[in-house]
Amino acid sequence: MDVLHELGATDAAARLARRELGAEALLRGCLARIEQREPLMRAFAFLDPALALAQARALDRGPIRGPLHGLPIGVKDIFDTHDMPTGYGSRAYEGHRPAADAAVVALARRAGALILGKTVTTEFASFPPGTTRNPHNPAHTPGGSSSGSAAGVADRMMPLALGTQTAGSVIRPAAFCGVVGYKPTYNLLARGGVMLASDTLDTIGVFARGTADAALLVAALARREDLRLLEWSGAAPCVGLCRTWEWDRTRPEMAAAFERVPAALSRAGARVREIALPERFAGMVAAQRTVMAYEGGANRADALMRHRERMDPRLAEHTEKGLLASSDEYRRALALAVECRGRLEEVFADCDVLLAPAATGEAPEGLSSAGDPVMNAMWTLLYTPCVTVNAGPGPGGLPVGLQVVGRIGDDRRALAAADWIQRRIDS
Amino acid sequence: MDVLHELGATDAAARLARRELGAEALLRGCLARIEQREPLMRAFAFLDPALALAQARALDRGPIRGPLHGLPIGVKDIFDTHDMPTGYGSRAYEGHRPAADAAVVALARRAGALILGKTVTTEFASFPPGTTRNPHNPAHTPGGSSSGSAAGVADRMMPLALGTQTAGSVIRPAAFCGVVGYKPTYNLLARGGVMLASDTLDTIGVFARGTADAALLVAALARREDLRLLEWSGAAPCVGLCRTWEWDRTRPEMAAAFERVPAALSRAGARVREIALPERFAGMVAAQRTVMAYEGGANRADALMRHRERMDPRLAEHTEKGLLASSDEYRRALALAVECRGRLEEVFADCDVLLAPAATGEAPEGLSSAGDPVMNAMWTLLYTPCVTVNAGPGPGGLPVGLQVVGRIGDDRRALAAADWIQRRIDS
Repeated sequence: MDVLHELGATDAAARLARRELGAEALLRGCLARIEQREPLMRAFAFLDPALALAQARALDRGPIRGPLHGLPIGVKDIFDTHDMPTGYGSRAYEGHRPAADAAVVALARRAGALILGKTVTTEFASFPPGTTRNPHNPAHTPGGSSSGSAAGVADRMMPLALGTQTAGSVIRPAAFCGVVGYKPTYNLLARGGVMLASDTLDTIGVFARGTADAALLVAALARREDLRLLEWSGAAPCVGLCRTWEWDRTRPEMAAAFERVPAALSRAGARVREIALPERFAGMVAAQRTVMAYEGGANRADALMRHRERMDPRLAEHTEKGLLASSDEYRRALALAVECRGRLEEVFADCDVLLAPAATGEAPEGLSSAGDPVMNAMWTLLYTPCVTVNAGPGPGGLPVGLQVVGRIGDDRRALAAADWIQRRIDS
Repeated sequence: MDVLHELGATDAAARLARRELGAEALLRGCLARIEQREPLMRAFAFLDPALALAQARALDRGPIRGPLHGLPIGVKDIFDTHDMPTGYGSRAYEGHRPAADAAVVALARRAGALILGKTVTTEFASFPPGTTRNPHNPAHTPGGSSSGSAAGVADRMMPLALGTQTAGSVIRPAAFCGVVGYKPTYNLLARGGVMLASDTLDTIGVFARGTADAALLVAALARREDLRLLEWSGAAPCVGLCRTWEWDRTRPEMAAAFERVPAALSRAGARVREIALPERFAGMVAAQRTVMAYEGGANRADALMRHRERMDPRLAEHTEKGLLASSDEYRRALALAVECRGRLEEVFADCDVLLAPAATGEAPEGLSSAGDPVMNAMWTLLYTPCVTVNAGPGPGGLPVGLQVVGRIGDDRRALAAADWIQRRIDS
């Protein structure tokens, strides 16, 4: 009983579906782990064990509702929930009670999940960090903005969690915490009821402890059963090593991972080759920043006007700058994004997937910053599916993460390749 | 004084900016008109004259805040407002009080607008009609889903209003009510705080009594001053007459307008030629329906699960079907949309804009349906800017509307051409 919190989502779901395991028992395992760890980790913005237990008992009493039956899910605190407060990581919204569930929260419940609690987000899912620590070393950031979802899944508090990525808020914290982060193709998951930071960029993603677990959740929420077919069929994958135009921002542990992992993949039969992105892609990180600032200005205009004194002063200033930013620059950024998306076919050429850094390196020390999204920003704006793989510990003992990048819409291949690659790294 | 409600937005804004007209005086003119007409028109879901007057007085006391200073704006009741209830046209949300303003509501206030009240929407901005009537004949529908915004602007209750289009919810009601409806390029206006029906489709649009008025509002909200440059420079526009693959759904008054208007434009020097859409475009109306149903299922899942008994039974059934719909068909629909967007350059060829039906004909009699969006669905999924022009009354004495369609992102040319075309029709 006392190791139920260690169960991955797929294993737990199978046992729950066979009624070998009750939703209440699994939840109690998670709650015991949370009770022990939460004072240090601070991953939750809201958690009411009684409310979670009531959901679990109702599931145990009723029929098997769907593929997520009985699985406890952590939900980033920018997803509205009808039965739990939703604070958007903002002092202005402490205790706010939405009237409805976000679309994916409702879909998760419909598929049998229980909503465990709300996880810590940075302020308005932007840069001012929350309270959460890195499970591998509490003096280090877990990354952001989906800090509590990444850390909670990594620390065995729950098997699955929901997050969003506008710059690097799914893939980076997943890499920092050593769990699987999966940012699907843009618009694969419905965004109704999720606080918008940037309409062009915001992408719902998930955290899990294995590729199959992440696929299980997204398949249920997107109603895309095919995403669960992870078996790699035929010849080993062709992997394009993509250091990107931001390679000089990475730290030595990333260079080491970029030696170690391709060698392991080659030994396993994968065709691995270096991919140089066209020069136009060198402007994509700046373009992402431009889009995020411009659209963030609009989406935080109400907060700025009515709650400025309760906003982080740097975020207030950033929001104001966004509102005053040049629309010409914004339009050029959007145009560059369209152009580069159009050139992805050429980039992928005969590769199944690309392999790129998921972060600059290990999670940095300190909690005053959630780390740098520079290795993620381009892929968010490109709309490609991204799945982290864990390349093992760096010099500080924290995980070093890579990301498998697929073609837009080709999520199944990205997931299957990530699964294949992770197995080769681990073996 | 008693004709202030007749002022268009541009004229009113100029007088307000010069302090020749006070926000309170203009508002009182609108409120008097509303008091007289609202019992018949039923355009408002919420209106509190005292709250509107308080805003007006604050604007009159303070500095000129921006280009919308003192303009009363009607807001479709799916846009969140922090100081007014937001009911989403649903019995389940009567009296619901959001915690924040939608992004464009906040931006409108920032630019000096006063939020007059919330206008009637169909249920969840889908097909079950609201209470509003057509100002040209109260036995006829005003169209939907932005029913109150279109009818209120047409009936001189306010100079400007906000709406959204998922199938045909801006352009169709604007055409039915004989006002300017402007659906900008997808994602020109920030959607934060607006109820999502379909992430792929939902597009914020505006209602006004002239093209320049519509441009004034969108320019302020999108921070795109260039959109106000409506003067057509150089040779008269080249207009592609586009009957679309749905032409057999139009009624005789639309055929008449398609004779009358091109002749007037040719006389004024425009180059007018027939444009036949490639055959692949024939699938776009069905593709739009598929996308709307699939994504609507997700976004109304919470309502279906918790408030089914308070939903229109047909909408509940439609939502359930959407949740059970084939993801393969959905993905094929999205792929067709991408393909057809990619072929727009070929469609426009040497034309500045296309001219297409804005509806099947005049607003049909009866209030049990908000009319057919079949002439709009394709353009919504294509993401093109669309601006209505009023081709004059049909046999029933109600307006017959056409729409000027521009290239994606080419809103300025679409607006300028619409302005040019409307002047030629009117002269």
